[in-house]
Amino acid sequence: MPELRREPITGRWVIVDTDHPKHPKDFVVDRPIKKGGLCPFCVGNESMTPTEIDAHREGATPPNTPGWLTRVIPNKFPALRIEGELDKRGLGLFDLSNGIGAHEVIIETPDHQKEIPDLLDHEVERVMWMYRNRSVDLRGDSRLRYILIFKNYGRSAGASLEHAHSQLIALPIIPKRVNEELVGSSQYYEYRDRCVFCDILQQELHDRDRLVVQNKHYVAFAPYVSSFAFETWILPRTHRSDFCHIEPEEVIDLARILRETLLRLRLALGDPPYNLILHSGPIEKEERPDYHWHIEITPKLTGLAGFEWGSGFYIASTPPELAAGYLRNVQLVASAG
Amino acid sequence: MPELRREPITGRWVIVDTDHPKHPKDFVVDRPIKKGGLCPFCVGNESMTPTEIDAHREGATPPNTPGWLTRVIPNKFPALRIEGELDKRGLGLFDLSNGIGAHEVIIETPDHQKEIPDLLDHEVERVMWMYRNRSVDLRGDSRLRYILIFKNYGRSAGASLEHAHSQLIALPIIPKRVNEELVGSSQYYEYRDRCVFCDILQQELHDRDRLVVQNKHYVAFAPYVSSFAFETWILPRTHRSDFCHIEPEEVIDLARILRETLLRLRLALGDPPYNLILHSGPIEKEERPDYHWHIEITPKLTGLAGFEWGSGFYIASTPPELAAGYLRNVQLVASAG
Repeated sequence: MPELRREPITGRWVIVDTDHPKHPKDFVVDRPIKKGGLCPFCVGNESMTPTEIDAHREGATPPNTPGWLTRVIPNKFPALRIEGELDKRGLGLFDLSNGIGAHEVIIETPDHQKEIPDLLDHEVERVMWMYRNRSVDLRGDSRLRYILIFKNYGRSAGASLEHAHSQLIALPIIPKRVNEELVGSSQYYEYRDRCVFCDILQQELHDRDRLVVQNKHYVAFAPYVSSFAFETWILPRTHRSDFCHIEPEEVIDLARILRETLLRLRLALGDPPYNLILHSGPIEKEERPDYHWHIEITPKLTGLAGFEWGSGFYIASTPPELAAGYLRNVQLVASAG
Repeated sequence: MPELRREPITGRWVIVDTDHPKHPKDFVVDRPIKKGGLCPFCVGNESMTPTEIDAHREGATPPNTPGWLTRVIPNKFPALRIEGELDKRGLGLFDLSNGIGAHEVIIETPDHQKEIPDLLDHEVERVMWMYRNRSVDLRGDSRLRYILIFKNYGRSAGASLEHAHSQLIALPIIPKRVNEELVGSSQYYEYRDRCVFCDILQQELHDRDRLVVQNKHYVAFAPYVSSFAFETWILPRTHRSDFCHIEPEEVIDLARILRETLLRLRLALGDPPYNLILHSGPIEKEERPDYHWHIEITPKLTGLAGFEWGSGFYIASTPPELAAGYLRNVQLVASAG
């Protein structure tokens, strides 16, 4: 069972992998992504993965066989395990919990050659629906407090397999950065009686120079305080703290703006590695007036994030006003969507 | 003039490089470290760098000529500039400051072939003295609130030049992660009337299984809550918040333990990229009872830090107890120190 440990200074929780601890020899610096060979995420190789949790399927094809369009499986090397009782305790100075939680993989398409920008809009919609459906399913588990959905694209963004996929980690604690957002936006709300994200959206729509693309329900922009060059956020125009409460009509627009934003990043930057993180409120019954779910996309263009992690001090080498301009001016080829 | 921008949600300050903004074409993904050719940090190439700020020299050799042992120069592409008045203001929702500060490079040795583990102990002492001397010099500037000293080693840790060097950034604000440490350790002190770092040191010395190496004045250990595999901290046994107040006798021991720790990491992990960050208290007249300066070394062994940055949620793939064991058991070759 993996362990969750809490740092006594800043309160950060960390997963410690006691199940498959890595030996020094296991770290191959600059390991390339495995190409060729058998891909466990490809159609026909369903038996290479753990048992399917959910899937969109054509017709009535049975689980763990071909015929799926998106497919969800447990991570083969999970950072957390779903079985067992939550056991939080102290160890001298330190706080400790067993690593209860879920770690799932959402395979976005059966086609090994395609990434989100290559899919049709309705295919991206299916991925968004799967994000939502898995979130709704897991929130029933009373041991869990937060559901983190993310996508690592490219080796230097942490991807180890090439086939298009996202990941979901369900946690018995709230991750530190999310908690900082919750605390900060709650303080802002207390003072001004307004959601800070709604205010940011208004200011970005007014200033215009950091906008990338918008549609009826969403706005994509380079935030005024970008920690990474070409960082892009997608914010829903409708205030809502919990991604689970998204409406069907909004899913269509979300798929469209996500596909176009990733396509613009690809064309402007030459297929850069990136991380995509869905920031939603914690698992709660009620909507929060002070938090606003959104997606953060951070291309990994420089190696600078090292000391920046340790200091919490970031340098954005392209001002967001310029980055947004480059992204707006990308010439989109006739889109398949 | 670069800009400092403050995020309204979490309060993070970010430097935005408006002086040399990068175009999409400037990001070459996986750019290798420049090897061969003329190295601006090598002896004889002093004219390739901005004018020397300080140096240890043999005899009475003049500045900006050979004869130096360690050498400090302004960063050629500084993230901040030292000239001008500090100008903090609001911009709609956002907070903004001009980028006043210093950005210096400390060249650790004239020898292009050597890194810290290859130096003699007294050569590493010189580097530590230079860390201290530059800190003491800059704290006289009333516009500055924090001095961040760090070293990026290897491409994936952010180094762009091969020749052994550290960097110093002096800031008009306190970086977020340091501030979190200050707040957390102050809360701990209020509750228990003890320094949390002193307590951690006691527990690590008692538990023993995370110790890497120790001497009279310092202890190197893998912290119970490692955010990265093989993360190693060096803590002084004497409580002191400000690195500037280090005693000459302690500098000798610091050089020794730093050299040996980096040598053990090199031998255990095959010369891994790493970031080294010196965490000291902010620029203040008085010592703090609740903060304790220390060095954090984080090898960059996996690409996972991407989504982890965005979520604040880390996975350590080698438990610190095992990592410390591997580092302790390294067979040191007959040391030159």
